[in-house]
Parts: sequence; structure tokens; C-alpha cells
Amino acid sequence: MSDKKIWLYDTTLRDGAQREGISLSLTDKLKIVQKLDEMGIPFIEGGWPGANPKDVQFFWQLKETPLKQAQVVAFCSTRRPHKRAEADPMLKAILAANTHWVTIFGKSWDLHVIEGLKTSLDENLLMIQETIEYLISQGRNVIYDAEHWFDGYLANPEYALLTLQAAIKGGAKWLVFCDTNGGTLPHQITTIVEQVIARLGLDLDLADSPKLGIHTHNDSGTAVANAIAGVLSGISMVQGTINGYGERCGNANLCTLIPNLQLKLGYNCLEAKQLTQLTPNSRFISEMVNLAPDDHAPFVGRSAFAHKGGIHVSAVARNPMTYEHIVPEVIGNERRIVVSDQSGLSNVIAKAKTLGLDLDKSDPTCREILERLKTLEHQGYQFEAAEASFELLMLSALNQRQLLFTIKGFQVHCDILSAGQMPEANALATIKVVVDDRELLEVAEGNGPVSALDKALRKALVQFYPQIAQFYLTDYKVRILDGTDGTQASTRVLIESSNGEQRWTTVGVSSNIIDASYQAVVEGIEYGILLSKDEIKSFSMTKSTQ
Amino acid sequence: MSDKKIWLYDTTLRDGAQREGISLSLTDKLKIVQKLDEMGIPFIEGGWPGANPKDVQFFWQLKETPLKQAQVVAFCSTRRPHKRAEADPMLKAILAANTHWVTIFGKSWDLHVIEGLKTSLDENLLMIQETIEYLISQGRNVIYDAEHWFDGYLANPEYALLTLQAAIKGGAKWLVFCDTNGGTLPHQITTIVEQVIARLGLDLDLADSPKLGIHTHNDSGTAVANAIAGVLSGISMVQGTINGYGERCGNANLCTLIPNLQLKLGYNCLEAKQLTQLTPNSRFISEMVNLAPDDHAPFVGRSAFAHKGGIHVSAVARNPMTYEHIVPEVIGNERRIVVSDQSGLSNVIAKAKTLGLDLDKSDPTCREILERLKTLEHQGYQFEAAEASFELLMLSALNQRQLLFTIKGFQVHCDILSAGQMPEANALATIKVVVDDRELLEVAEGNGPVSALDKALRKALVQFYPQIAQFYLTDYKVRILDGTDGTQASTRVLIESSNGEQRWTTVGVSSNIIDASYQAVVEGIEYGILLSKDEIKSFSMTKSTQ
Repeated sequence: MSDKKIWLYDTTLRDGAQREGISLSLTDKLKIVQKLDEMGIPFIEGGWPGANPKDVQFFWQLKETPLKQAQVVAFCSTRRPHKRAEADPMLKAILAANTHWVTIFGKSWDLHVIEGLKTSLDENLLMIQETIEYLISQGRNVIYDAEHWFDGYLANPEYALLTLQAAIKGGAKWLVFCDTNGGTLPHQITTIVEQVIARLGLDLDLADSPKLGIHTHNDSGTAVANAIAGVLSGISMVQGTINGYGERCGNANLCTLIPNLQLKLGYNCLEAKQLTQLTPNSRFISEMVNLAPDDHAPFVGRSAFAHKGGIHVSAVARNPMTYEHIVPEVIGNERRIVVSDQSGLSNVIAKAKTLGLDLDKSDPTCREILERLKTLEHQGYQFEAAEASFELLMLSALNQRQLLFTIKGFQVHCDILSAGQMPEANALATIKVVVDDRELLEVAEGNGPVSALDKALRKALVQFYPQIAQFYLTDYKVRILDGTDGTQASTRVLIESSNGEQRWTTVGVSSNIIDASYQAVVEGIEYGILLSKDEIKSFSMTKSTQ
Repeated sequence: MSDKKIWLYDTTLRDGAQREGISLSLTDKLKIVQKLDEMGIPFIEGGWPGANPKDVQFFWQLKETPLKQAQVVAFCSTRRPHKRAEADPMLKAILAANTHWVTIFGKSWDLHVIEGLKTSLDENLLMIQETIEYLISQGRNVIYDAEHWFDGYLANPEYALLTLQAAIKGGAKWLVFCDTNGGTLPHQITTIVEQVIARLGLDLDLADSPKLGIHTHNDSGTAVANAIAGVLSGISMVQGTINGYGERCGNANLCTLIPNLQLKLGYNCLEAKQLTQLTPNSRFISEMVNLAPDDHAPFVGRSAFAHKGGIHVSAVARNPMTYEHIVPEVIGNERRIVVSDQSGLSNVIAKAKTLGLDLDKSDPTCREILERLKTLEHQGYQFEAAEASFELLMLSALNQRQLLFTIKGFQVHCDILSAGQMPEANALATIKVVVDDRELLEVAEGNGPVSALDKALRKALVQFYPQIAQFYLTDYKVRILDGTDGTQASTRVLIESSNGEQRWTTVGVSSNIIDASYQAVVEGIEYGILLSKDEIKSFSMTKSTQ
């Protein structure tokens, strides 16, 4: 492995948690820190114990279950103006966290010293130096985060450099350039970092030299590129978050940054085996913060290595590197063949292979599936987002689709009474199903016709397939399709179902939205049963990470 | 304005539509192209008429309603190996699109010529040159997209350069470097583009020199930074998509790229007034493709200028530029102070102005509208794409909303009988309405519950408002909103109605899809009546394109 070591610094638990809508419990934080530790992240920022009481608990809890290799870092600002460091309650709290490493952030931009801190430029320099000195006297190693570094340096480079010199005098082991407002572009990072190294006269190869880090935000859409520009200019620590979570537009996304640095630029970030945890950990953490994973995220997204289009797919099958910038398995992701109206035979064959079925181009079944696909797509079906329905279609064509149940009919009734301005809504569904020659009539209520229908069907089938009790609808999308040739418009429904561990998507099309939904609901339940019976050999749907 | 002109080239309708899950109707495409034209995008790629029959219709339709300023570009590959360009059906299709500009893509990477096209390296050069020559002989201007440029150049620079020389010989006006696999990093773009300009001996300042463009993908998370690197090296056309839609991890996001180029680097992309359309258009197009807008998108996201925390907020209020990298209003976005109610007032005032109403910041009605808006948005309502509902809301707040009718309640019944494999679908709606103290009970059938409901309501009201006979539903979009705090998920419905001349959109939100649809249907009819009575003075809704 390369000796060009890059130190990863994860701040998902502190800066990442600033994202609107994220609210982490203590248990969530402990689960996340464990995954990051297992993946080999050397520095994990745990929180700001002086500002957030929940973070105090987190550090205490960690003493009970120590990590394998990571340093958990406590975060804090410099001491208050004109107070002694020893007397600052914030610094007391950071010491009580009892970590080997602490990160102190201070002001680099003269404007922020005067307008934000409302103190003098000289006092700010003392605040930086004395805070670091005090923490070192208490046995801590200090990382110094230079807030608003790039804006501050552009506004008043001489003063900005003095703040870093104060941190060096104080004894900081790392100086971290923070692009706090996220407004800097990569070529500006390159220029400034190179200037700063020269003007501070740093020889980064010396053992006792402070080392350099970078902390970037994504307001210009270039957080990852900015961190890379910093590394190419001599920086050896990158700060970021899993999935790029963070305030406003987020922080540098470590799931993008790590593979770029390691696989493309030859830096040593993680061991190869740990790197394969990147995709599962990205999805695990998105579950923890209760946000849908970004299917289109670089490297770790579900669509990051998805291919469609016939010629394209056959080329990938022959030589993946002609259409893929890296090998997906290296970061724990996988190639996915998407089925769409541009598909050719090679798509169908590639897809069949993922189901453990060997089809040949000359096999008439292959062409039959393709014909059926085209007919359905002409009617408005769309399988690229409904792989479960496509797999059922393939099983039908191969005569391997068992008849689990037959639906004889259903009725849905909605009754909405306006009482003044507030209508009360309710829906009732009745369904008639045949399973093993037994006819079942069931009824259920729901907060809408589709959920009523889903409930009635599951109520009827659960005695035969008890696993159905675990299924639930996780997403529902509706699209009206243009009527072709002056015919009636039709409705396409995509339904995503889950059994708590896996998710799968089915599709229905009809001129009636209830009928379209019904088709997708029925196939969703059928597919879920097959999954639980291990009838589906390979799952192209999202796997659970738990 | 700066004379450093950058030509924007939008490929949302072609490359953007490759994103998994996006499926654009002809009407969607026509609406999108109109917005892009109004915003001043000079080149809009409309589709690949040779490969997709739907795209043929699009180009035909555009002849009926020509654009104001944009060039709509048809996209196609080079001719087939060892065939005459005149005889190639793909090229016939691109000529039939009858555009001034066409984009031809060809192979740059020797490996793709041999393995993909299965032809000789020399034949590929002829394919590029002759295709371009032929299209120019037919009166077209040609943009040449060099597919896999960066990988191809790294693999075999001499051959890659020959492909560009073939395009120059053929007469291409633009040479576009495509990072098709999205694997290149910014510093590599800089090096390669500078080398290529030197090795081709291009003097880009000469009037007859081919100009250079760049087309980047986001597989490394650096599509925007890559395009910027290209521009800084002499490139003057950037290709990308609105919201970065595109295959796998998407294309360069024009909503990020444009403000970076124009506001930070001083290039001339759009007029200042057009630039303020960026945020509304980003959201409009996300509605068109039926994807939730990315709240955390740089520049145009709802959270891009969101501030929280006390000190921070007061600092922003004193001096915004200390915490914001650009002024949000310049791109049509706004600062959002999470703890205060300041945000949005100017929007309300601006909106009132479009209705011919002069409101003042100190007017309590203004604040009342804002409060109501915030409550509704918290419930899941969204007015970006439902301006008719927003206008009704404003009329209510101003006590100018007449009571046209009152709905006492309704019922919807769907009965679906499976006869073998083909279920027959039908829906029946009954509704009770009061108009002018008269209570009306009506019933109607439809090909789904929403259309049955719409028909029953119109049947009841048409005797009072005969203009209703001309109304019909033109689009219907549904999105499930995540339940917050463990509450039930709710459904948002957007309904577009038309009177044959104008179109308007209304919104409804409820835990029951039928109830949400009902709200939007009712407001759609109410708004249509007001329109026909000239009660609505200014129409911010989409005008009909047909």
C-alpha cells in the first residue's frame, strides 16, 4: 500500500448532525461511532460537550465500550475573551470528556473577531494560543480548526497568518483550513494552501512540524474537489461526513472523497477490506439518521453502477472498465443492469444471470421476454424502477411463477363528509381471494383506498403466508401517462414494499388509479412471499445493512 | 457584464432523462423547453430522434410553437461503419428534426472503436469526418461530442487527437470533451485540456477556430469542479442538466455551475434577470419529472441559505456576507432564518404584485398570508408548482375570495372484478353541493375515482357556471410525504386543469389520496371559474403551448 497516508477525520456526529431534520439519539450515535471505528476511520469527532449536554453523555458512555482503533475527538471553541482558560466552563466540559484528542476552533477572519466576538484582534490571538497551551498542559493533543480560513485569508492575509502562528506557538499538532461558508473553488484552495505553506515556512516532512488538514462545505458543489485540491497541495488530513450530511448544503462527503483519494490518487486512507464497508456503512448511517439513501450518490449509490441501453450493456459485460471508472466491489457496491425501453436481448440475458438463470441469445424465451417487455412498456409499464415486477415477468416467461393466490375481485369505498372546512376521510376495501381452492372474503379500513386494499389483501392471505404480517408499504408514486393516439390517459403506480430487511418495487398500469395500485400491491405481496421462501435467488433490490 | 461569454448547453431532456425513474411525456418536455428558453439557455438538446420515436414528435411539435431565443439541438451518433452518410436512417431522422444545430457524438477511445463499434481505427475517423461534412452540406451547424475523451486520451493520445482532427476537417463548430464515465478529477481535466489545445495548435481567439466545450458526469462527485477546470483552461461551452439529473450519478448540475461561473468567476452566462429564474426553474423541473427537490442542493436548495443558532442569526442579519457565500436573491433563492418569521415576506409581496395588489411589509395581511403559508407548508403543501392554489390563498387572506359553491360531502366507489387475467375497472362518485342556497346531489362514473369525482362536481355546477363544460384535467401528480415525528405519511396531489386556452395547477394534501385529490380538483374548478370571470387579473400559470 502507498505510504502517502491521509488521515480521515469524520464529523458526521457533530457537523453532520447540523443538517436540518437530523436528530440523533445517544444510541444512534453509539451505533454510528462503532461502524466508523470498524471501518478504520482514525479520528471521529464525537460532539461539543460544552454546548450540548447530550454529547457529554456520549463521551461518558464511550468509556464503557471503548473503540478498537479510532480516536474520539471532543470539539470546542477557544476560551472567552479576557477570561482565563482554566476558568472557562466550556473547556472544563471538554476536559471532562476525557479524550486524548480535542479540536479547538478559532477565528481567522478579522471581521468575525470584531463583529462576532466583539473583541480585539490581539486578544483573539491570545485566546487561540492560551486555549491550546492550557489543553496541552492537561495532557491533550490539539487539532486547531481555523474557521472561515479562506475568506479570512483573502480579506486580511497578514492577520490570518498570525492566527495560525498563535496556534503553532500554542502547540497544535494539526492546523485545519476550514471553508466555513463553502464558497471557495478548487483552484483558489490550491493557490491559498500553497501560499500559506510558503509564508509560514512549514517543512511538512519534519517530524515536529504541525501537519495540515482541510474542512470543506458544499455550498459551491465542490466540497470534495476542494478537499482533493488541498491534499494535492500538501494537506494530509481531510474532514468530512458520511453521505455529506451537514448544515445548508452539507460537508465534504467522505463516501466520495475516500475512494477518489485511495483508488484514483493512490493515497492510503483505509485498508482494502475496510474500504468494502463504505457502501454498507453509507446505507446503514442513512437508516440511522432516517433519511432515504441517495440512489445517485457517487460510488455508494444504488444507481452509481447501473447500466441501461443494449449496446452499452453488452460492452460492459465484455469489458467493465470501458464503462465504469472503478470496480464497484472494491467499495462494496455492485453493478446493476437496468431494464428499460431501450433494452435489448443482452440486458435480458444479463438480468437473468443475476437471478441465477442462464439464458442464451438463441433461446426463444429470451426473445419472448423482450417482446412482452416492449408490449408492456408501450402500455406505460416501466421496469427500470420496478425490478421486482420484472423478475416476476421473467419467472412467468420461464414457467417458474407459482400461483400463490387468485383475486376474484374487489371493491373500494371512500366517504368524505365536509364538516365545515375539515373533511373527514376514510376508505373501506373488500376483496375476494382464492388460495388452495378456498374462497376468502375480507374487508379492511385504511387512511386511503390503497392502504385499505393492501390491508384487506394481507388480512386474507396472512393465515396462509404468516410472513406477510411483516410487510408494509414504504413508498408510493403515481404518474399520469399521456394518452397515445387520442385514447384515454392511463396511470402508472410504483409501490415500494419492505419486510423490515429488504425493499422491492412493483408497478401497475391502468386507466383507473385504484386498479393500477391494486396490480402493484398484489405483485408486491407476491414478491415478498417469494423472497421469504428463498424462491428469488439473487436480489437486485436494496439489501438491508442490518 | 463581462465579455467572457460561456455558452450554456442544457441536456436535461436527453441525458437528464436517462436518470433511472425519469420518464418525460411530450407535454412535460415542451413545458421544460419553454422554461429553459425563457431563462436564456442558448443551446437546448431536445433528444435523439433517430433512437427514440417520442423525440421525433417533440421536434415536430416545436415547429408549431417556436422558442424565443434558444437553439434546439438534435442529437445523434456518427454514421454506421462502411455505409454512406446519406443512406443512414439515423441521420435521416436527425435531418427531419429540422434544427439549425445538431450534435454528433463519436468515439475517441481506440478500445471503444475496436470493441464497441467493431470497426477499424481509420474507418472511425472517416465516420466522424463524413458525418459532419454531410450534415453541413444539408445546412446544419455541427457540435461534435468526443465521447470518452479523457479516458481515450489517456489510453492513446495520438489516436484521440486524430478523432478531433477528423471533426475539425469535417467542419465542426464546437469540439466537446466528454467525460462519459465520470471518472476524471479536476486537475486531470486542467492538464489534458491544456495539452490538447497546444497539441492541436488551436488559437481559440480566431473567429474561424473551432470552439471547445465540456460535458461532465458526476461519478467522482466532481462534475461541476471538472467543468470549471475546463473553463479555466479555455473552454467556452459547458454541457449539463438542471438539478444534475442524468444516468448513474448524474451530469454536471447547471444550477450549481451557472452561479459559480457567473457570480464567482465573472463569466457571462445569463442576464441578471434570467439568473433569478434559476431557483424557481430548478423546482419547477423537479415537479415536472416528479422527483422531490433536493433541499440541500447548492445555491437552489431550500436549505442552501438556512441559518440556525442565535449568534449566527444575528451576525447574518448584521452582515450577511460573513456567513453566506453569495446573495441568495441573485439566483431567486432566499435566506431562511429557522427561528424567525422574516423569510418569505418579500415573496408574498412580489406575488401579490403579479395579482395587481400592492402590499406593504408593514401590512398585517402580508404577515397573515405568510403564517398561513408556513402552516400549510409544514403540513406538506407546496406552492412552487401550484400557483393557482396560492393565488386562492391570497384572495382568502385579502377577503376577496367569493364563495362560489360549498361541498357538503362526497362518496367514491370502485368495483373491480377479475375476469380471468383482465380486471374490468370502474368508479362511481356521488357529491352533495350547495350553490345559491340550492342543494344539489349528483352522481357520475369515471375511469377512476378522481375523474368520477371531477365529473360529478362539474355535472352539479355546470348549470350555474356553463364555462365549466370546457374544463378538463390535463395532469395529475402524486407524491407520498414522509411522516414527521412518527405520524402517518400524507399524500400530496398536484392537479393541472385546462380550459383549452390556459392551464393552471392546484394542490391538495391529506392522509387519504382521494381527499387530497378532491381538494385539488375543487380548487381547480374554482380557479377556472374565476379565470373565466376575469377575477384573476394576472396569470402566473403556464400558458398553453398547444
